[in-house]
Amino acid sequence: MALLSVLTPVLAVLLCLVLGFMLMKSRETDTSAKETGVASKTADSRPWVDQDLTDDTEITDKGDDDGDWVDSNEEDDCQHVPYTPPRYPEETMLQRSKDFYTLLNQRRSVRFISPEPVPREVIDNVIRTAGTAPSGAHTEPWTFVVVSDSEMKHKIRLIVEEEEEVNYRQRMGDKWVNDLAKLRTNWVKEYLDIAPYLVLIFKQTYGALPNGKKKTHYYNEISVSISCGILLAALQNVGLVTVTSTPLNCGPQLRVLLKRPANEKLLMLLPVGYPASDATVPELTRKPLDGIMVHI
Amino acid sequence: MALLSVLTPVLAVLLCLVLGFMLMKSRETDTSAKETGVASKTADSRPWVDQDLTDDTEITDKGDDDGDWVDSNEEDDCQHVPYTPPRYPEETMLQRSKDFYTLLNQRRSVRFISPEPVPREVIDNVIRTAGTAPSGAHTEPWTFVVVSDSEMKHKIRLIVEEEEEVNYRQRMGDKWVNDLAKLRTNWVKEYLDIAPYLVLIFKQTYGALPNGKKKTHYYNEISVSISCGILLAALQNVGLVTVTSTPLNCGPQLRVLLKRPANEKLLMLLPVGYPASDATVPELTRKPLDGIMVHI
Repeated sequence: MALLSVLTPVLAVLLCLVLGFMLMKSRETDTSAKETGVASKTADSRPWVDQDLTDDTEITDKGDDDGDWVDSNEEDDCQHVPYTPPRYPEETMLQRSKDFYTLLNQRRSVRFISPEPVPREVIDNVIRTAGTAPSGAHTEPWTFVVVSDSEMKHKIRLIVEEEEEVNYRQRMGDKWVNDLAKLRTNWVKEYLDIAPYLVLIFKQTYGALPNGKKKTHYYNEISVSISCGILLAALQNVGLVTVTSTPLNCGPQLRVLLKRPANEKLLMLLPVGYPASDATVPELTRKPLDGIMVHI
Repeated sequence: MALLSVLTPVLAVLLCLVLGFMLMKSRETDTSAKETGVASKTADSRPWVDQDLTDDTEITDKGDDDGDWVDSNEEDDCQHVPYTPPRYPEETMLQRSKDFYTLLNQRRSVRFISPEPVPREVIDNVIRTAGTAPSGAHTEPWTFVVVSDSEMKHKIRLIVEEEEEVNYRQRMGDKWVNDLAKLRTNWVKEYLDIAPYLVLIFKQTYGALPNGKKKTHYYNEISVSISCGILLAALQNVGLVTVTSTPLNCGPQLRVLLKRPANEKLLMLLPVGYPASDATVPELTRKPLDGIMVHI
């Protein structure tokens, strides 16, 4: 009995500890749910950085969308019109398919961009082309911020490089790094100053209904990525180069810098220009057709 | 002291209850984390349907990836070679940018597809072209399953329509629907039988390292969506039509039907062919340039 009496305060303390642990745990769960899994390494030092990445519109619920894009309510209110696009003879089709493959197969991610100016009208047409992508319920949930102002480009570079440096420094804690110089080239992004244009692609995670309520943009990330694919094809078609980058952690800072509203999240940043005369690319190959296609 | 002794078993029971509760809670968290928020409505009746949608590779951690695609470890081991793509005079660039915009601006999501056969070689080239997309760390995380077999197409249709019907029936519980016939056209997908080709695009959420361990494919969904954008451009270029659909709930069933491995998740299903002679499209317009682009 005396032993039991002694045990009581011990158990009481244990109970308190366990309850305290549970409380902490449930708070952690809330936070991580909000962050939708975004790298929480930097969350302590700069909690606001990741908070803005909240995006619970992806795949969480299909709602009224039936999976067929543009097959939305808007369509019901919409008149249908005949659709008769050009039709090519089989030989022409085959030649066109070959030529387009040859063109696109020359595309590479290029980090060495020439400072030469590029006609603004060409950029306008390339963005117009990207805007022809399909989107869930025809929401067109994209904003292309095209930056040519030198000062703004430099501010963007500072933000991106600061985040990259944090990433690398954190990694240095885990790995022993012999070649600092090599590492350094990875976080210095000269092309952000040099490229005549930076295209920052934002996804609009929701829009506004006439009654002021939020309208979820289903599949906004997929839609904007498809649009980016068309953008890459359009750039390649005019002989311009870029490198697809997804600077996730700096999204919120860049959003604020570029004065974009809270429903917009940075998805990609593409520096655009002619390739530098001494541009190089890694000697990578692509998978052959039978490595990416299965025919049934 | 006697009171304390009496309290001991009570506290012990409480401790056990709390610990048991915590265990349950942590299991719940695991499960919900695995589902990454995928529609859990149907989870009760057919739990296996959603389980396969598990994909925790999206944006959870950038790992060794620095956000610049193809800027991976592979690249360090890779020789760099000069890159000198064709350069067009400004006038040619401008004309090419206009022509490509005109071509792509004619693209529409078309649900009325002709049963006429399409040369297989054209489809091969279109898929080859899609395979030129950039991808996180050059993982090329896509599989294009091209189905022309009538029986297989019909099996796919049955699976897709069954899921669509479930979606619609569930929605009927929430909304009063006057026009059943109108609704019905939404879940019947005749084109899945009629189109000469169905292209099912799978994202590979992870690959295998030489040592047999899993290799996470960062940004696999964004990469595959970009690839889909290039595929849409390639189809439009040869005069073929499609409609982008994301049949999320039937992904696992279709994956099993098509014998794809567990690391592959269905992202999109595109019926491909010539447009039917009486094809119509909703009279939708696209946002003007200043509605999608901001210049700084």
